[in-house]
Amino acid sequence: MRKVYLDHAATTPLAKEVLEAMEPFFSEKFGNASSLHFFGREARDAIEKARNEIAKFINAKPAEIIFTSGGTESDNLALKGVAFASKDKGNHIITTKIEHPAILETCKWLEKQGFKITYLPVTKEGLVEPESVEKAITKDTILVSVMHANNEIGTIQPIEEIAKICKKHKVLFHTDAVQTFGKLDIDVKKMNVDLLSASAHKIYGPKGVGLLYVSKDVKIEALQHGGGHEQNIRSGTENVAGIVGFAAAVKLMQKLGKKEQERERKLRDLLISKILEIKDSRLNGSKEKRLPNNVNVSFKGVEGEALLLRLDQEGFAVSTGSACSSRSLEPSHVLIAIGLKPEEAHGSLRITLGKDTTEQDIEKFLNVLPKIVASLRKISPF
Amino acid sequence: MRKVYLDHAATTPLAKEVLEAMEPFFSEKFGNASSLHFFGREARDAIEKARNEIAKFINAKPAEIIFTSGGTESDNLALKGVAFASKDKGNHIITTKIEHPAILETCKWLEKQGFKITYLPVTKEGLVEPESVEKAITKDTILVSVMHANNEIGTIQPIEEIAKICKKHKVLFHTDAVQTFGKLDIDVKKMNVDLLSASAHKIYGPKGVGLLYVSKDVKIEALQHGGGHEQNIRSGTENVAGIVGFAAAVKLMQKLGKKEQERERKLRDLLISKILEIKDSRLNGSKEKRLPNNVNVSFKGVEGEALLLRLDQEGFAVSTGSACSSRSLEPSHVLIAIGLKPEEAHGSLRITLGKDTTEQDIEKFLNVLPKIVASLRKISPF
Repeated sequence: MRKVYLDHAATTPLAKEVLEAMEPFFSEKFGNASSLHFFGREARDAIEKARNEIAKFINAKPAEIIFTSGGTESDNLALKGVAFASKDKGNHIITTKIEHPAILETCKWLEKQGFKITYLPVTKEGLVEPESVEKAITKDTILVSVMHANNEIGTIQPIEEIAKICKKHKVLFHTDAVQTFGKLDIDVKKMNVDLLSASAHKIYGPKGVGLLYVSKDVKIEALQHGGGHEQNIRSGTENVAGIVGFAAAVKLMQKLGKKEQERERKLRDLLISKILEIKDSRLNGSKEKRLPNNVNVSFKGVEGEALLLRLDQEGFAVSTGSACSSRSLEPSHVLIAIGLKPEEAHGSLRITLGKDTTEQDIEKFLNVLPKIVASLRKISPF
Repeated sequence: MRKVYLDHAATTPLAKEVLEAMEPFFSEKFGNASSLHFFGREARDAIEKARNEIAKFINAKPAEIIFTSGGTESDNLALKGVAFASKDKGNHIITTKIEHPAILETCKWLEKQGFKITYLPVTKEGLVEPESVEKAITKDTILVSVMHANNEIGTIQPIEEIAKICKKHKVLFHTDAVQTFGKLDIDVKKMNVDLLSASAHKIYGPKGVGLLYVSKDVKIEALQHGGGHEQNIRSGTENVAGIVGFAAAVKLMQKLGKKEQERERKLRDLLISKILEIKDSRLNGSKEKRLPNNVNVSFKGVEGEALLLRLDQEGFAVSTGSACSSRSLEPSHVLIAIGLKPEEAHGSLRITLGKDTTEQDIEKFLNVLPKIVASLRKISPF
C-alpha cells in the first residue's frame, strides 16, 4: 500500500535536488571548514556560498546568517542570547501563548534566571493583536518574540505591524519562522525583523541544520562555546553538507514559488470544505490568515489520537498537533489558547500538505476520513 | 594531482558504508521521530537501534546516550549541564590547560557565572598527573574534566586513574573522547567515567552529530529547551540520518579494530623516525602514550603555516595544530603548556593518519617534507 504523507509541518522528505547538492560534501569535499589546506578551503567556500544565497533570499547580509543545528537551537540562541546580552537594559520579554515549545520552554527557563515573561493571549482565530504587544511593552522590555505562522493551526501573524511597534519602542523583535521560511515572502529589512529562526528539514532540506538571522545591529551572546565558529556566536565544526543542503532547499522553494503555494492552497480549501461537511466538525485557526498547506480540524466526540492511528492503518500520515510534543498527553496549548475546552483540544487533527501531495491523495483521504470519524463516534463514550 | 589527506584529527571523509546506512533516511524513511504515525515510528526505531548499538559499544545503557549536534555541544552540555545541576553542592571545576577550546571556552564562560575553575598544568609530554588532580580537589569540587587524548599532540591521558580518584572523592568525572571514541577501547563502567563526549565526523561519520554519555546516576540540566527530546536533556528534532550514520561509523571502527590501529601506528612511527632525521626537529607529545595516528613535530626556524601552505601546494593536507582554532593567530595553547616558546609553537606541524592513508602516501610525503623545510629555512629571518 502506498502511504500518503500529510504531515509536512512535522518534517519533509529530502528533495532529490537537495541530496544531489549535498552528495559531493560527504566523502569527496569532506574538509573541516576551519582547515587552512585545500580540503578546508573547499568546505569554507561551499559554506560561504550557501550563506550568501540564503542571505540574499531574505534580504540579509551574509554576516547576519548564523548556522545552527536546527530551529530549536535557533530559538534558544535568539532568546537567551539576547536576554544575556541585554541584561543591563532590562529583564522583560514578551511572547505569546501559542509559540512553539522551543520558545515557551526557553522562556520558562529564562523566568528561573530572573527574567519576566509576558505570554500574550490570542484571538479565537489564533491571532496576536498588535495593540496587545504595544500595551505589554514596559521600560524593561528587551525583546518581543512572535512566531511568523503557527505550527499547529497555521495562523499567520501580523509580524510586520508588530515589528513596527517594536521598532518604535526600541525593543528587539524576533520571529520563529520555521513554518514559513521558504514558503511566505520574507524580507527582514522591509519587515523590520531583528532576529529570525528557520530550519532546513521543513522545506525538503536535511534534519540537523537551521539558522538564526541576527541583524548586524543586535548584540547577542553565544550559548555554545568553543573554537569560535560562526563569528564566535555558535562554535562547533560546521555541518558542511547540511548547510549546502539548506541552501539547495531554499533554491528549490524559490523555484516552486507562488505557483506551488497556490496549488497547495486549493487542495487545502478542498480539504477544509469537504471536512466541514462532516457533522460536528470545526476548523481551528483562521480561514484567511492561514498557511497554504495547513488544515487543523476537530470532531466532536472523537479522540484525535485514535483518529490518527486509524488513519495510519489506512496509510495516511497525519498529526494531532505538533509532532514536537505529540508524545505528550497534555492537550495542545495552542488549541487551549484559542478557546477550545481540553476535551475538544484532544479531538483535533492536523493535515499538512507538501509539494508531492496530489489531488488523488486528498480524494482518497476524503473517502476514508468520514467513515473513520463515524466509526469512532459509534464507540465513543462521550 | 591526487591529493594526500593527512589531517584526520580535523575531520574524516564519510565512509561508503556509512553513507549507505544513511541513505534510506534522507528521502524515504524521512519521518520526524516524534510523530506517532508509521513514518515517525520508523524514524524512532532507527534512532533507538543506533542508540542501542552505540551504548553497547562503550558498555553504557541506551538511556545514558544523549545525541547532540557534535563534540562541541556535548562538551558544553557536560560542563554547563553538571555545573547548573550541582550548584547547591559546590562551584569548583577542575580541568587542564590542554583541553579543546570547547572545554576551555566553556570554562571561561562558567567563570563569569561565578564558578571557580582550576586549569591543571601538564608534563613536558602533555600528561596530566593524577596526583595533581587529587591535590586540586576541594570540598567545593563538583566536576573534573580531562580529555581522553589530546587533539593536537595526541597524548593519551591516564583517565582511569583520574576517574578512580574522582570516584574516591565523590566528584563527577567527564572526559572529552572526541579523538579516541571508536579508536581506543572505552568501557565507561570499568573506567568509572560519568560523562563522555564523542563526535561522528572524526570516525568517518557525518558532521553535525555527536553524543554525550551521561551515567544514569548523574544529574544534568538541559541547555537547549523545547519539545523535550532526548529525555528532556536535549530538545530539537532528531537528526535521524546523522544518528544512523554515527552508529554505522561505530560499526566500521569496530570492524577495522586493532589491526587498523596497528597499521597506522607503524606508519606513524615511520613518519616520526624519518622526520626526526631532519636537523633541529622535535617531536611534541609523548612517544609511547600517543594516539596511533598522530604525529606533531616542530622545526626550528620554520613557520608552521608557511610549511602547511607549501605542503598544500604539493598536494598534502596537514595542520599546524587544531583545525578548530587554526584560523587564530595565537600560538597553540597546548604547545605552550608543554613548555614550548611561542616562536617554537608557531613552527609546529600536525600530521594525522586515517584508514585510507597508504605507505606510498607517507613515502611521498617524506620525499617532499625535508626539501620544503630546507627551502623555508633558507628564507627564514630567524
